Amino acid sequence: MSHYHYPTLLAFAETVFLQMGVEPAHAKTAAQNLLSADLRGVDSHGVARLEGYVRLWEKGRINAKAEFKVVHESPSTAVIDADAGLGLAVGSVAMQLAMDKANTCGTGWVAVRNSNHFGIAGQYAMMAAEKGMIGIATTNASPLVSPTFGAQRMLGTNPFAFAIPAATEPTFVADFATTTAANGKLEMLERKNEPAPNGWIQTASGESSTDPKAVKAGGSLLPLGGDRLHGSHKGYSLGAVADILSGVLSGANYGPWVPPFVAFLNPLPDLPGLGLGHFFGAMRTDAFRPAEEFLAHMDKWIIAMRGTRPIDPAQPVQIPGDYERKCTAERMEKGIYLLPEIESSLDVLAQKFSISGLQKSEA
Amino acid sequence: MSHYHYPTLLAFAETVFLQMGVEPAHAKTAAQNLLSADLRGVDSHGVARLEGYVRLWEKGRINAKAEFKVVHESPSTAVIDADAGLGLAVGSVAMQLAMDKANTCGTGWVAVRNSNHFGIAGQYAMMAAEKGMIGIATTNASPLVSPTFGAQRMLGTNPFAFAIPAATEPTFVADFATTTAANGKLEMLERKNEPAPNGWIQTASGESSTDPKAVKAGGSLLPLGGDRLHGSHKGYSLGAVADILSGVLSGANYGPWVPPFVAFLNPLPDLPGLGLGHFFGAMRTDAFRPAEEFLAHMDKWIIAMRGTRPIDPAQPVQIPGDYERKCTAERMEKGIYLLPEIESSLDVLAQKFSISGLQKSEA
Repeated sequence: MSHYHYPTLLAFAETVFLQMGVEPAHAKTAAQNLLSADLRGVDSHGVARLEGYVRLWEKGRINAKAEFKVVHESPSTAVIDADAGLGLAVGSVAMQLAMDKANTCGTGWVAVRNSNHFGIAGQYAMMAAEKGMIGIATTNASPLVSPTFGAQRMLGTNPFAFAIPAATEPTFVADFATTTAANGKLEMLERKNEPAPNGWIQTASGESSTDPKAVKAGGSLLPLGGDRLHGSHKGYSLGAVADILSGVLSGANYGPWVPPFVAFLNPLPDLPGLGLGHFFGAMRTDAFRPAEEFLAHMDKWIIAMRGTRPIDPAQPVQIPGDYERKCTAERMEKGIYLLPEIESSLDVLAQKFSISGLQKSEA
Repeated sequence: MSHYHYPTLLAFAETVFLQMGVEPAHAKTAAQNLLSADLRGVDSHGVARLEGYVRLWEKGRINAKAEFKVVHESPSTAVIDADAGLGLAVGSVAMQLAMDKANTCGTGWVAVRNSNHFGIAGQYAMMAAEKGMIGIATTNASPLVSPTFGAQRMLGTNPFAFAIPAATEPTFVADFATTTAANGKLEMLERKNEPAPNGWIQTASGESSTDPKAVKAGGSLLPLGGDRLHGSHKGYSLGAVADILSGVLSGANYGPWVPPFVAFLNPLPDLPGLGLGHFFGAMRTDAFRPAEEFLAHMDKWIIAMRGTRPIDPAQPVQIPGDYERKCTAERMEKGIYLLPEIESSLDVLAQKFSISGLQKSEA
């Protein structure tokens, strides 16, 4: 059980991307976006995936020398072709473009095609909130989810993130997979050999299951809601919208054609698009009302929600982003804990790229 | 048990609005938007609510002579003050403005304040899809929902609607409350004296309940997901985003301050905004890629989803909007069935406004 300081892991990831041949500005951004997952407690999407990105590069599916190009544009919109580069780098470029469009037009909306996984969606939405805008980010991902009534993986866990600034209260940051539970949570249960709650997964024939291994055995994750009676058609609809905005609108792949993250699985033949896709939005609040009014009312909104009478006084109502903010503060101070198998994967990368080993923190 | 032809009910609703003093163009739009709920099978939001709108008008909370005014604007955005008028009328005006903005800017985003309930969200999203655009509509509503960990009604059932056009396949139309189940479904169970499934509602003290009367007794509806373990923080986040876009961004009320739909409950004192709020978006697909490409890939997306291996061959995977489309076709042909209590409420209105009684269809 080892802890690592954030700057140590950040520098390591940046060096790996540089050694792959990624240009310095993008390597830095990609490392920051990757590590934001570790800071925010989404362990499945952080340095744990660094080796996965390297494998895709070795397979020729990630282009380290990618040049991001705007291929379509209107005053408030754009599409970027990521040239098969790092989603972790193009994500920030695309959100910055959405913010630039918002600066002239009130709002900006940028779709990205020909990309790879971009880490956590929340990080991009927060870029906009840091500049006082409302930020929205979504992406599609490799198919793991059955639509309602289905027994076949047709959609990814396709997350949505929304970041909304306030005056003195912290930023509202909702960032969630459109499934009952994210795949990372299932991996954790599998590692601990614990059953999954009902409504998270089903077997390959579509029977409800509590075995976290059922997904790897051909089963699937369930859309938010779990089953039809509990609103899974709503989770399916949300995942579908994420897929259509990210894939169909951008010219990327979509649905069952989204290329798998794991390098040992090949993409399907006859792909309808390029790579995977993302979608970003930025809205100036002062395109709707004076910014100081908006921010003051967001404070009031947040304070009201926190003041909700709780079921259990020991567990007050939270604002989306509270947990992740606490997690970030703790990990910036105490370091980031990595499982032995993740440490090993980083050792392999250190050897591969002749980087001196990672220094553990004293914590 | 009586059926009524759609044109009969449409004309009746239009006449009621005209008699209230609503200007002809808005009375017609409002009647169409109201009736779209009956056609699409959302019985709780259609003519069943006509008497409710009239009561709010009698209380002075709906201004029949409202003038809708654009009070804030940017190239891709606007805010409309609905002057306490019918949400059913201003909704179409606002979506049309969003579409006009999209025509010049690629996308358009319009928030509305000082409004009343607008019926079903899907109807407005579909206006954009009919013109080949992606339509988005959301609203806040009277508080009925507890946030995760809460035992107090702080949010409405705050629906989201998305309408996305295709080439030869029908339009994708998702329109759903951000709760496990819509309040209308609960009312139906209560009428039939049947229990509600687990995960739909909780009592005033926050205990899970299957008694559909629990909400009226001070309990609340649960966010999509039901409980924390099944992702209710995601449903809470979605309902919150709908509330913030509709209420905080527009200058309307939000959260617990959204005025109640029922006229016998007064709004809270010291309201932070004006009326309730809506939010509309329209995106030209050709602001992202050639429209014919987008439409062809939407066809492919829809066909792929329909082709998902089903759990039960008798229940194939559906596309959002399939059920409502079938329902509309049936009801246009066979008429709309109204419960005796709804018929009585329309009789009361016929007398009040000296309208000749409603003619039942032969069906």
